[in-house]
Amino acid sequence: MALETVSEVRSHGGVQGVYRHASAATGTPMTFSVFTPAHPPGARLPVVWWLSGLTCTHANVTEKGEYRAACAELGLIFVAPDTSPRGEGVPDDPEGAYDFGLGAGFYVDATQAPWSAHYRMWSYVADELPALIASELPAGDLGRQSVMGHSMGGHGALTLGLSFPDRYRAVSAFAPIVAPSQVPCGRKALGGYLGEDAAAWRRHDAVALIEDGARVPGLLVDQGAADPFLAEQLRPDLLAAACAQAGVPLELRMQPGYDHSYFFVSTFMADHLRWHAERLGVGAKAARG
Amino acid sequence: MALETVSEVRSHGGVQGVYRHASAATGTPMTFSVFTPAHPPGARLPVVWWLSGLTCTHANVTEKGEYRAACAELGLIFVAPDTSPRGEGVPDDPEGAYDFGLGAGFYVDATQAPWSAHYRMWSYVADELPALIASELPAGDLGRQSVMGHSMGGHGALTLGLSFPDRYRAVSAFAPIVAPSQVPCGRKALGGYLGEDAAAWRRHDAVALIEDGARVPGLLVDQGAADPFLAEQLRPDLLAAACAQAGVPLELRMQPGYDHSYFFVSTFMADHLRWHAERLGVGAKAARG
Repeated sequence: MALETVSEVRSHGGVQGVYRHASAATGTPMTFSVFTPAHPPGARLPVVWWLSGLTCTHANVTEKGEYRAACAELGLIFVAPDTSPRGEGVPDDPEGAYDFGLGAGFYVDATQAPWSAHYRMWSYVADELPALIASELPAGDLGRQSVMGHSMGGHGALTLGLSFPDRYRAVSAFAPIVAPSQVPCGRKALGGYLGEDAAAWRRHDAVALIEDGARVPGLLVDQGAADPFLAEQLRPDLLAAACAQAGVPLELRMQPGYDHSYFFVSTFMADHLRWHAERLGVGAKAARG
Repeated sequence: MALETVSEVRSHGGVQGVYRHASAATGTPMTFSVFTPAHPPGARLPVVWWLSGLTCTHANVTEKGEYRAACAELGLIFVAPDTSPRGEGVPDDPEGAYDFGLGAGFYVDATQAPWSAHYRMWSYVADELPALIASELPAGDLGRQSVMGHSMGGHGALTLGLSFPDRYRAVSAFAPIVAPSQVPCGRKALGGYLGEDAAAWRRHDAVALIEDGARVPGLLVDQGAADPFLAEQLRPDLLAAACAQAGVPLELRMQPGYDHSYFFVSTFMADHLRWHAERLGVGAKAARG
């Protein structure tokens, strides 16, 4: 698997890279970003996955996420994939809607035509990209991974984390879609990609996964109380109820006055990274040990 | 002077605002951003001015500058103006070059037609916008101001700071154009806006200002050693020589491997803000006092 370097620039003592490769999962070129902090030769650092929201590419969090200072301090590699396949031959929402098709892969492997040919973001993020990181970025320690994301990417982070609790040592989200089966944008996406049989949706719905027995040691969720998508699409109350019922420790922080933007995400990014670092065995807590 | 609110969002505990107003100086609508940290009712906070580089608007540093965490911690208001007038009737470089005309006001009051009608960024940044801030943003303490900037905005920060040493208590820059009279982009800009008599340029050239007797208590400059504009356009060596000759304390930090981008700027932003805070009498040092 060849990796093309789009750009590598020094930032916060490390290297912010952007790379492109031919993805077998999606059948398209895929672009992603990686921040690697300064580290001693031969050192291997935990890998934090960032999954972005609707309409985003790798670039949004890379430019606006304010994660580099904390990753440099804590010694965390930060990887941000794209949110869908792109390019010639990749179908888009027939009406060009922002919540389906390009920029809206919803972190599933589509089973329905015409989407199933390229929209395979679950395999891409869960399998192909970690294997590529393992082979091409020797500083990345894939034995220590965690996952976080925003909005649709919060949905991706929660479903990945709940599906592979042994792989991701920490799972957190910013304003996640927690129950796509129960909200309009999620029903549209899961119905479109996976078909109308809602039984197939449950593996891609964090609340349903918990109801069906998935467990993690804990979840951290920040949610802006002034987020315009809160009541109709995000519904953190549904996650809170499922976690309470199942005994999954959830730290749900309603943040007064905050909206859905990266001005919100960047405010709590360092908090989340410290929370991940503790669970990955690095940073302040590890330094005390 | 009416101020139109374009947007106000909560971030890092404070408010990131974007505002528009009808500028008397430029004869156009002008847009700028202001971050105001959380503060007790009635408190007044120092104002740090950020001047941006070629091609930028207020948005570049607002999205990529990573200044809010430090401003929130230190209690600093951060104001980012645009880099030129814009809109119908505002002339641009005849060839659409990025280094003259729109996005390239160079912080001067043009004297040459057709530029002199609107390109009055010196009056705008030095006089009109501070007066607007004073009248419209009561938390801003215009008795405590400082100025910093990047590239062309570093030029603006240095020339403003050297011109009004009693007004700006701290002056710093990232990869500044230090001697526009001596470098290609600066000669083009000053010649175009101010005419071919280079005597008129000296008030807008930091090195010439120092040679002509301008003094400040100190300057902080970060410069990426891998900046592609370093040798031809930026020439920090000329600033170092002028400061050494004049006895102006200059902390010039050549940063190995860093380029000209906001990945560089954001790396050292918090450092600069702490340096400003000390000179503005706030933050860690003030808290000890």
